[in-house]
Amino acid sequence: QIDGDRLWDSLMEMAKIGPGIAGGNNRQTLTDADGEGRHLFKRWCEAAGMTLSVDTIGNMFARREGAEPDLPPVYVGSHLDTQPTGGKFDGVLGVLAGLELVRSLNDLEIRTRHPIVVVNWTNEEGTRFAPAMLASGVFAGLHDEAWAKDRRDAAGKRFGDELRRIGWEGDEPVGGRPIRALFEYHIEQGPILEDEGIDIGVVTHGQGLWWLEVTLTGKESHTGSTPMAKRRNAGLGLARVTELVHQVAMEHQPNAVGAIGHVEVYPNSRNIIAGRVTFTIDIRSPDKAVLDAMRERIEAGIASVAGELGLGHDIQVAGHFDPVAFDPACVAAVRGAAERLGLSHRDIVSGAGHDACWINRIAPTAMIFCPCVDGLSHNEAEEISKDWAKRGADVLLHAVVETAGI
Amino acid sequence: QIDGDRLWDSLMEMAKIGPGIAGGNNRQTLTDADGEGRHLFKRWCEAAGMTLSVDTIGNMFARREGAEPDLPPVYVGSHLDTQPTGGKFDGVLGVLAGLELVRSLNDLEIRTRHPIVVVNWTNEEGTRFAPAMLASGVFAGLHDEAWAKDRRDAAGKRFGDELRRIGWEGDEPVGGRPIRALFEYHIEQGPILEDEGIDIGVVTHGQGLWWLEVTLTGKESHTGSTPMAKRRNAGLGLARVTELVHQVAMEHQPNAVGAIGHVEVYPNSRNIIAGRVTFTIDIRSPDKAVLDAMRERIEAGIASVAGELGLGHDIQVAGHFDPVAFDPACVAAVRGAAERLGLSHRDIVSGAGHDACWINRIAPTAMIFCPCVDGLSHNEAEEISKDWAKRGADVLLHAVVETAGI
Ligand SMILES: NC(=O)NCCC(=O)O
Ligand SMILES: NC(=O)NCCC(=O)O
Repeated sequence: QIDGDRLWDSLMEMAKIGPGIAGGNNRQTLTDADGEGRHLFKRWCEAAGMTLSVDTIGNMFARREGAEPDLPPVYVGSHLDTQPTGGKFDGVLGVLAGLELVRSLNDLEIRTRHPIVVVNWTNEEGTRFAPAMLASGVFAGLHDEAWAKDRRDAAGKRFGDELRRIGWEGDEPVGGRPIRALFEYHIEQGPILEDEGIDIGVVTHGQGLWWLEVTLTGKESHTGSTPMAKRRNAGLGLARVTELVHQVAMEHQPNAVGAIGHVEVYPNSRNIIAGRVTFTIDIRSPDKAVLDAMRERIEAGIASVAGELGLGHDIQVAGHFDPVAFDPACVAAVRGAAERLGLSHRDIVSGAGHDACWINRIAPTAMIFCPCVDGLSHNEAEEISKDWAKRGADVLLHAVVETAGI
Repeated sequence: QIDGDRLWDSLMEMAKIGPGIAGGNNRQTLTDADGEGRHLFKRWCEAAGMTLSVDTIGNMFARREGAEPDLPPVYVGSHLDTQPTGGKFDGVLGVLAGLELVRSLNDLEIRTRHPIVVVNWTNEEGTRFAPAMLASGVFAGLHDEAWAKDRRDAAGKRFGDELRRIGWEGDEPVGGRPIRALFEYHIEQGPILEDEGIDIGVVTHGQGLWWLEVTLTGKESHTGSTPMAKRRNAGLGLARVTELVHQVAMEHQPNAVGAIGHVEVYPNSRNIIAGRVTFTIDIRSPDKAVLDAMRERIEAGIASVAGELGLGHDIQVAGHFDPVAFDPACVAAVRGAAERLGLSHRDIVSGAGHDACWINRIAPTAMIFCPCVDGLSHNEAEEISKDWAKRGADVLLHAVVETAGI
């Protein structure tokens, strides 16, 4: 078993870097705070006897040697970046539980046959630079590295420039590492485990997603003196598309979700009818047919809203992944570990996207969830208990040791 | 008659200060560009033999002495500040036509009995600091000066601090000046005059307005893993209120308008359900009963949208004026001047708010409109012709000379 107190202390120590304004974190990818968090993680890994490699997109790989160094390593990890108003656990738990697992093996003087690698993937959150899970996507061959480095944040800064600026562009080529298996431990980010009083979510599937970045173009004009009939109000278009996305998601309950969380209104003046709005639609479903049908419905709906209101429209894909089925053997290893530890567990579908979803395409992969209070995530008030954190980390330890062999 | 070329040259010269990005202007109130525009206006006024006073809220008064200096002056003017994406004429035309009127009287060596004052009111637009027509409102006794100076922009900067920073806090107390009459010349900002091929709008009334700044508070949570039934989506609330405002305005056609041009979404991340939105509703009508009924309907609607979606709501008045009826004698002076000059004219209601609407409460006031292309204003593409500009300025000259006497 791992040391739950030491894991918790590490979580609280990391949370001091890039504090939020309401008890959580703002350690967005490729900010100074992200750089600082990486340095702390590096020091901890080196103190635990691991050797660090960094690839050219900033993914960090801390390796604990195996008894048979030529065998492909077993990977554990997640991401250290957060939302602008993020919690202390989303991502961080998976990385630091990986570190704690190595510390525990050190304490127990256990050497696994396969090496173990603890990984921190760059830009999982996707808020500052879309899409989410960007660097694991490059690693898995889904995205081109040059394209990824050319993504821009809202201020127009390039991903590649910011990576270099914070000093975390490594020299190892991205991808091509042998991988025996990957286990990602994460908070559920939804309410099911807590509601049912269950310790461990055995993640069998992940939802698919479309991020559609939509621009509606109307005509800026005076809110007071422009007759209603002469308006081309992009803000009203935003309203109708927001309602449409909601209705389409509601029709597929409980197999879909949909919302718009990101909105830019231009020129955003009280007495100017919005001449342009840009916003990102987020729709998800565990069922690919449902997901793609939702996209079609919404795209057609946008065209008719634009037609009604005399608006121009443009739709760009800002992110996409199909629903995922994790590797049956890895999933069984997680379920078996929970059984052996006597922890309550259930199979579960991930509502969120994770780096593991990409890695699953190139290597056997599974995920472990622990509950979080009120299902709340992407909120500074995100919370878990020390016991919840420890139980999932114990499952991680057992699944990894079983897979890496002793 | 005034010199149309000289007026046009002055307009084009002023438009070089605080250029926009698409041919218009961004000379928002109390920015460096506003300060620079004020200096240019000051130089021009002094070159035309006027003496300048500035009050403690930054209103500029350039005085041309009358044959009887003790008589109350006739005022002309408008505002030099612009929208963030504003045109070259909204406000500026009225100020520079006032200057041109004085230059013409100088050329003709005419001295009026009453002095003439050309005024530039601070912060007419209301975008950077709400409400609109802020400093003329203080002048007319509608707002308290200390309250006005405590208004803040989106970056949290205080009006009073910014006024001092740009060096235009004068020493004259605000208000209390004797006023024989005030004439404000402005572009229509709507399509009626151009559509009907008419030179001059004789403004008899102005619409009333409510600006309601609404905050809806939901709960930030993950767009992927939060079940639809558990969401408290403030962005969906914004959508429903936007539609409501539109429908309420449509029901009162053609006697009302309504829109939402200013929106802040928090935390504005693609994968976070909006936890808070703040936005400003702009509703207007020339009929006070309609205007107030719209406000009631909308406030009740906001409460029910909030109830439906589990949102908190807060509504603050960010601006308000009742419909205005201008002074019959001043209006007759404008109409008479257009008649004598042989210009086509019609009575018209102002869709926008103007400083003249406040001054009308303390002194006899009227307005003159000229057409603008496609009724477009609050858009960098705002356009008028040199002839249109001149004809309205001629009417201004004649109405002022008649009122000031010779
Ligand atoms: N786990 C997580 O919050 N990932 C961010 C990408 C997503 O929106 O699902
Ligand atoms: N004339 C003008 O655009 N004034 C700004 C205040 C308003 O929104 O009516």
